[in-house]
Amino acid sequence: VKRYQPKLIFLANPNNPDGGLISPEIIRSLLKLPILVILDEAYANFCPEPAGYIDQVASHQNLIVLRSFSKWAGLAGLRVGYGFFPENLVPVLQKAKQPYNVSVVAEKAAAISLLNNHRLQKNVHKIMSERERLLKRLGSIPWLQPYPSSANFILCKVLDREALNVKRSLLEKGILIRYFDKPGLRDHIRISVGKPKHTDILLDALNEME
Amino acid sequence: VKRYQPKLIFLANPNNPDGGLISPEIIRSLLKLPILVILDEAYANFCPEPAGYIDQVASHQNLIVLRSFSKWAGLAGLRVGYGFFPENLVPVLQKAKQPYNVSVVAEKAAAISLLNNHRLQKNVHKIMSERERLLKRLGSIPWLQPYPSSANFILCKVLDREALNVKRSLLEKGILIRYFDKPGLRDHIRISVGKPKHTDILLDALNEME
Repeated sequence: VKRYQPKLIFLANPNNPDGGLISPEIIRSLLKLPILVILDEAYANFCPEPAGYIDQVASHQNLIVLRSFSKWAGLAGLRVGYGFFPENLVPVLQKAKQPYNVSVVAEKAAAISLLNNHRLQKNVHKIMSERERLLKRLGSIPWLQPYPSSANFILCKVLDREALNVKRSLLEKGILIRYFDKPGLRDHIRISVGKPKHTDILLDALNEME
Repeated sequence: VKRYQPKLIFLANPNNPDGGLISPEIIRSLLKLPILVILDEAYANFCPEPAGYIDQVASHQNLIVLRSFSKWAGLAGLRVGYGFFPENLVPVLQKAKQPYNVSVVAEKAAAISLLNNHRLQKNVHKIMSERERLLKRLGSIPWLQPYPSSANFILCKVLDREALNVKRSLLEKGILIRYFDKPGLRDHIRISVGKPKHTDILLDALNEME
């Protein structure tokens, strides 16, 4: 029997689409294995502090941490992010990297986001606070089973009805949510955290459903 | 003796850094070979009409033409371009393509450039006209040998002195040009076409050199 030895493991932490966090014990165990551990921390800004493994990169030869401006800074459409890499991997990455860099607009917007970090963190905390209110209210719907989340969305299992119908019904009211129906994730919907008024409109629409 | 059969040929037309055009006879001969011909037409907008081979893609299974918004539309910093491909290659290209698309800013700017095509073409024609004036004036410098160009720059062979010194001397005056000193391209400089006043300032600086 031929056994394949993986060379790297790619983990989203918090995970998408469920918003779950991997326990520090598991991460520590993975880092002891002879594999490269790549953590996608696109949603780490929505975790209670201290979040993420950026601080651990300098002391590990096999850890890469990726971050994004798409979520916390709202720059998804500009396609800009960054990563923390073991120094000896940088020449290899430079070889594999596309010749072109981040666009001037994205670079400028990212720099301005960093300068306005304090103000943007206020938005992040508003989203985190609204996430907990949304979680509680979604839990009050008898046919929804929401999962606690460390990201800016909440995944819910849909009970006793078709998730696709829930998505369609909300779409008719101008509310767009993600819907999942694939192996391992049947009858689930994912709702992004918005402003309090968005939570209210969504909950009204969900409560109106038969 | 092992002979290698190339699978594709990649040509810039007009070429960078010399601004030269490949003769239509050569392109026609290449298209008859069992290879994929990829024409990078980033500078084709600076040619007298009719320019480029976009029209030929539909009738050839082995021709790809690439275009850019970087030069004629001035969007270099936004990283946006487009291509014309044989239809049967599209699924293969989709597989190799990065998952992310052009940024929303680049997409919007490209669309607005197309809407303002008429106005931008006026700029292109100004550049083409100034290119001819710059070519004539560079030809008046005894130690420069400029090449006729179909792009928005002019390559010059530097005679009787070091090209690097010319570059440095202009840099001190705030004029930035490209300098080449590599196998096949010794002692050359490349000058981008600017506004008439830029040509005048450049020529004054060149004439002041010993």
